[in-house]
Amino acid sequence: MEGALNSVEAVYFYYPRLVCVVAVRDVAKGVVNVAPVTWTSPLSSDPPYYGICLSPTTHTHHLVVSTGEFTINFLDAAHREMVERMGTLSGREVNKVAMLGIELTPPAALGTPTLAAAYFAAECSLQERHHLGDQTLLVGEVMHTRTRPGAFNEEGVLDVASASPLLYLGRGRYLAGR
Amino acid sequence: MEGALNSVEAVYFYYPRLVCVVAVRDVAKGVVNVAPVTWTSPLSSDPPYYGICLSPTTHTHHLVVSTGEFTINFLDAAHREMVERMGTLSGREVNKVAMLGIELTPPAALGTPTLAAAYFAAECSLQERHHLGDQTLLVGEVMHTRTRPGAFNEEGVLDVASASPLLYLGRGRYLAGR
Repeated sequence: MEGALNSVEAVYFYYPRLVCVVAVRDVAKGVVNVAPVTWTSPLSSDPPYYGICLSPTTHTHHLVVSTGEFTINFLDAAHREMVERMGTLSGREVNKVAMLGIELTPPAALGTPTLAAAYFAAECSLQERHHLGDQTLLVGEVMHTRTRPGAFNEEGVLDVASASPLLYLGRGRYLAGR
Repeated sequence: MEGALNSVEAVYFYYPRLVCVVAVRDVAKGVVNVAPVTWTSPLSSDPPYYGICLSPTTHTHHLVVSTGEFTINFLDAAHREMVERMGTLSGREVNKVAMLGIELTPPAALGTPTLAAAYFAAECSLQERHHLGDQTLLVGEVMHTRTRPGAFNEEGVLDVASASPLLYLGRGRYLAGR
């Protein structure tokens, strides 16, 4: 397969990618919204910035801009089914945390909780946004991190015998990093 | 492990990540430079944008800004040793393509070649750069893609039985996505 690409072809060539569950407060409803995001990356070491790409039409984008913060949460492959259901629901219509029975951990530095089940979670403060094509890059400064004991070795490298990260391939297909 | 993070701790929590080999022309020397980059992400579907994060102090950053283009190349896990050596060499001092015996494929749309061994390669035209902390996000518009026959199915999803992507965990540790 070779040639100029269309936007559909473009999407899955860049996978597998870590599934990053973004949590953000919905202040009007008094709930927390969660959404799986795959277009994410570290952006800077010092200060530590992490970026997530969201369509400006999404509820999650609206909530991140409203509250000025979000958390990122990485899950084991065992949570695949929950993540798949999360991706089909809209936080505009339902309380996903309640529907999916997600347990939250209170924040330590900012105001947004993390997912208790995450082997790694970080609280991020929104610093910049850049409109790039049909998405917005939301740049968060990492203010606090939480790791599950044993998930990372003393050098901060993931121990895949202890945590098997959920990776997305596209079109409902996943991989377990191990 | 819990607490405010330092920049060292921050780095490897966000892995595993696909290894993206960036190729760019060094016009002054008449060669092509190659460098493995792990902080990368798709940024937009329409137009198709792909972003790579590089320190502004690097030779690769200088060359991308000079030529206004780059290619991205994803390799099978079998190329791990070559990628490790690539990461220890500087294109300021040596011709990495010659030293590592890398075969290049001529470009189809722009002026920068791709790696013949890549199961997926794309030619990107630099559209924007954003300074974010200690890195620069270089935003390329994907102008042409090339995939190895059989690597992706008809929906554009990677067939991990045909291509086993090289994923980086940090500190010299890798995974094969399969």
